[in-house]
Amino acid sequence: MSGELLLRPAGEIASAVNTGAVSAREVAEAAIARIEATDGKLGAFTDPTFGRALAEAEAVDTAVAGGATLPLAGVPYAVKNLFDIAGVTTRAGARINDDHPPAKADATLVRQMTAAGAVMLGGLNMGEYAYDFTGENAHHGASLNPHDPTRMSGGSSGGSGTAVAAGMVAASLGSDTNGSIRVPASFCGLFGLKPTFGRLSRAGSFPFCASLDHLGPIARSAADLALIFDALQVDDPADPAQIRRPALDTTPGIDDGIDGLRIAVAGGYFRERGMPEAYAAVDHVAKALGVDREVVVPEAARARGAAYLITTSESSNLHLGRLRERAADFDPDTRGRLLSGAMVPAAWAIQAQRFRSWFREAMRKVLEDVDIILAPATPFHALKSGTKTVTLDGVEMPARPNIGIFTQPISFVGLPVVAVPVWLPGAALPIGVQVVAPAWREDWALRVARYLEASGAVSAPVANS
Amino acid sequence: MSGELLLRPAGEIASAVNTGAVSAREVAEAAIARIEATDGKLGAFTDPTFGRALAEAEAVDTAVAGGATLPLAGVPYAVKNLFDIAGVTTRAGARINDDHPPAKADATLVRQMTAAGAVMLGGLNMGEYAYDFTGENAHHGASLNPHDPTRMSGGSSGGSGTAVAAGMVAASLGSDTNGSIRVPASFCGLFGLKPTFGRLSRAGSFPFCASLDHLGPIARSAADLALIFDALQVDDPADPAQIRRPALDTTPGIDDGIDGLRIAVAGGYFRERGMPEAYAAVDHVAKALGVDREVVVPEAARARGAAYLITTSESSNLHLGRLRERAADFDPDTRGRLLSGAMVPAAWAIQAQRFRSWFREAMRKVLEDVDIILAPATPFHALKSGTKTVTLDGVEMPARPNIGIFTQPISFVGLPVVAVPVWLPGAALPIGVQVVAPAWREDWALRVARYLEASGAVSAPVANS
Repeated sequence: MSGELLLRPAGEIASAVNTGAVSAREVAEAAIARIEATDGKLGAFTDPTFGRALAEAEAVDTAVAGGATLPLAGVPYAVKNLFDIAGVTTRAGARINDDHPPAKADATLVRQMTAAGAVMLGGLNMGEYAYDFTGENAHHGASLNPHDPTRMSGGSSGGSGTAVAAGMVAASLGSDTNGSIRVPASFCGLFGLKPTFGRLSRAGSFPFCASLDHLGPIARSAADLALIFDALQVDDPADPAQIRRPALDTTPGIDDGIDGLRIAVAGGYFRERGMPEAYAAVDHVAKALGVDREVVVPEAARARGAAYLITTSESSNLHLGRLRERAADFDPDTRGRLLSGAMVPAAWAIQAQRFRSWFREAMRKVLEDVDIILAPATPFHALKSGTKTVTLDGVEMPARPNIGIFTQPISFVGLPVVAVPVWLPGAALPIGVQVVAPAWREDWALRVARYLEASGAVSAPVANS
Repeated sequence: MSGELLLRPAGEIASAVNTGAVSAREVAEAAIARIEATDGKLGAFTDPTFGRALAEAEAVDTAVAGGATLPLAGVPYAVKNLFDIAGVTTRAGARINDDHPPAKADATLVRQMTAAGAVMLGGLNMGEYAYDFTGENAHHGASLNPHDPTRMSGGSSGGSGTAVAAGMVAASLGSDTNGSIRVPASFCGLFGLKPTFGRLSRAGSFPFCASLDHLGPIARSAADLALIFDALQVDDPADPAQIRRPALDTTPGIDDGIDGLRIAVAGGYFRERGMPEAYAAVDHVAKALGVDREVVVPEAARARGAAYLITTSESSNLHLGRLRERAADFDPDTRGRLLSGAMVPAAWAIQAQRFRSWFREAMRKVLEDVDIILAPATPFHALKSGTKTVTLDGVEMPARPNIGIFTQPISFVGLPVVAVPVWLPGAALPIGVQVVAPAWREDWALRVARYLEASGAVSAPVANS
């Protein structure tokens, strides 16, 4: 029974553990068994913490036996290996980081998960230093797509997608700078939440690009995202960049439907560069929501370019010392990206920041007239592993950077997004749609995602592999 | 009488006009006469507005006749030509800007001066686009030092120093990015105030480096700085970068002495690179204040380097289009600075911003133990015009950038500074000392400056030229 329950949403697992129908220890053992049986082929875990999982599960069982009810009681999860896990070296996907001592304490968000009763199964594979959209990693191998292991999981939170889609854990935490939660959610057919910039504490995580980094959950249900998001929120003095959210009315709740929300499909740029499945998925979602309105996001291509310039120059600055001293120890692809970023002129990066202020204001205006914007999460289904180029709109271009063309302009100004998984009729692979909301209105995006899930329009089945 | 009064501090002029002892029109006519008699040799004014001056003076006289008392009644002043003056093209020292249409409205600070009863005599010469410490300008000639016209006025607010030191106006407004108010104050023997970053509105001024630009007054008395500073403060929705100051107790007032203020001399970096007159001036001020404490500003050299990187990269970004399209129309020296700035790698500029956060915190800690820091304003007296190199600490180096070695680390983190003018015994030229306070504590620095002025330790006589 715990084996079947493992494949159910986190909320159901927590209910079963809280009512004593199953023990957290049984769920943890089922998760360990499934990881051991399947991860050899899929490459999701780099740092299993099975001992910790069993100890945490027993603590949860003790608490429940003592009368406690925990929102994530016994929910098995794992984290991208850029989160600090006490006693584990924080790899951030990099061989260079193997020289770091083990983390002394858990990241803030890991502590929040523990406090909510979740059970940590370990650290997950990721693209080196998060500069990736593929899920490939020169040091630790690729995290593969459970729906078709010849394909990419998507990145950079690749293992976070693989582990959840394969049913090894009920949920995972990842990070998203330009799409690194939404891309694996799209490729692996999962729900992913990139919250408002500054909302969740980043204390105890390895950075990529400070002005764009977000942390957030991936799960197999929209309701699970909300459950986990509630658990993750805390005012954290250890994160000086955290922004205190304004007071907001969050009624109606996640299960209360979409009445009152003005929803539109992103036109222009967001209808121009993708493959047919990307638009079919958006149209499928729009139809399920009864939406026929279109809205144009102004200067989205420029927003993507500016996000690229800021990403590459900030991350190259972060790694400048390592580039000088440890160049040979980088993944060659990452090294190339960072070296080119180190040569970007400051005048360009400053211009990108100036444009960012303009674009933030432009998006604020767009979001006065509409509450939710729908856009593709990726321009295509998961690519075959090792794909180097794609042909979009008749032009052959590098595959990796273009995986993020639709996610990058949105995170550029920190808007919250829920990626929802669409299985088009007859399709062998899923593809994601972004549900974009104004700053701090994660609840609106989650309501839409939950409505779509409840109506059957989107779903995240565990892969059969 | 109005001719003699013109050479007195602004506060005395305002009193005389408010009491009807003299009319604002008489003072304005005296200022016009003195400008016409002396400015041909000194080069302070680029855009006289004598018609406006007479009209404003008459309006003041009418108001006073009607019973009004205005804090700056009839005070003649002028502004660096990067301030918008309605009907005048805002040159910012650049020939390229001559193609701009005349400003439609006054800058916010000009409006504040008008409202306080001050009388605008015109726009003042400045280094091209404010990227200057000399007061030289390839298009408009040099603004010369009234105390010795073979010497520099200092820049970039060169005309703002020249006009006040020569007694053409009682006060002026300038801008200070890395020292452009404090340097001409030092070279011309004047009081200058660089307020806390973000305190005064910059709306209607031509920028140089947005994250470092400050506007402020130059005058011949510390009391005048306070009078003008009070008039300039306004919450201005037109300046999105303005920072609302915290509520502060500003008693005791400017004339209440220095009891309770913990004052120290900056050691280390600030005692290492100057010529003897710079240290003699600081020691003179310290002695007048009864100060023998020394404090070390950590990493000041790095602060100066970081301020340079941010200045050159932000300003080059601002001028990138003009560099591409109008390169031949720049002052060749400015063009060289901006072209080199356009090639600074983004990773360096980002590192400079990261260091800035560190240094801001370090200075905050230093200013927990001490209320006022004394440091030289410039490393030497005014240089001979055209000086290209100076020898400091045994090393020959370019003159222009090194004029700002002591001002630059302070403005880098936005601290308020009053520059006070010292005439050392037997010296033919003045030199300035910086009175540095914590953020928002202009009142403390002004109290110290006023105490020094009242005790006779510092003074700003009109030049005899």
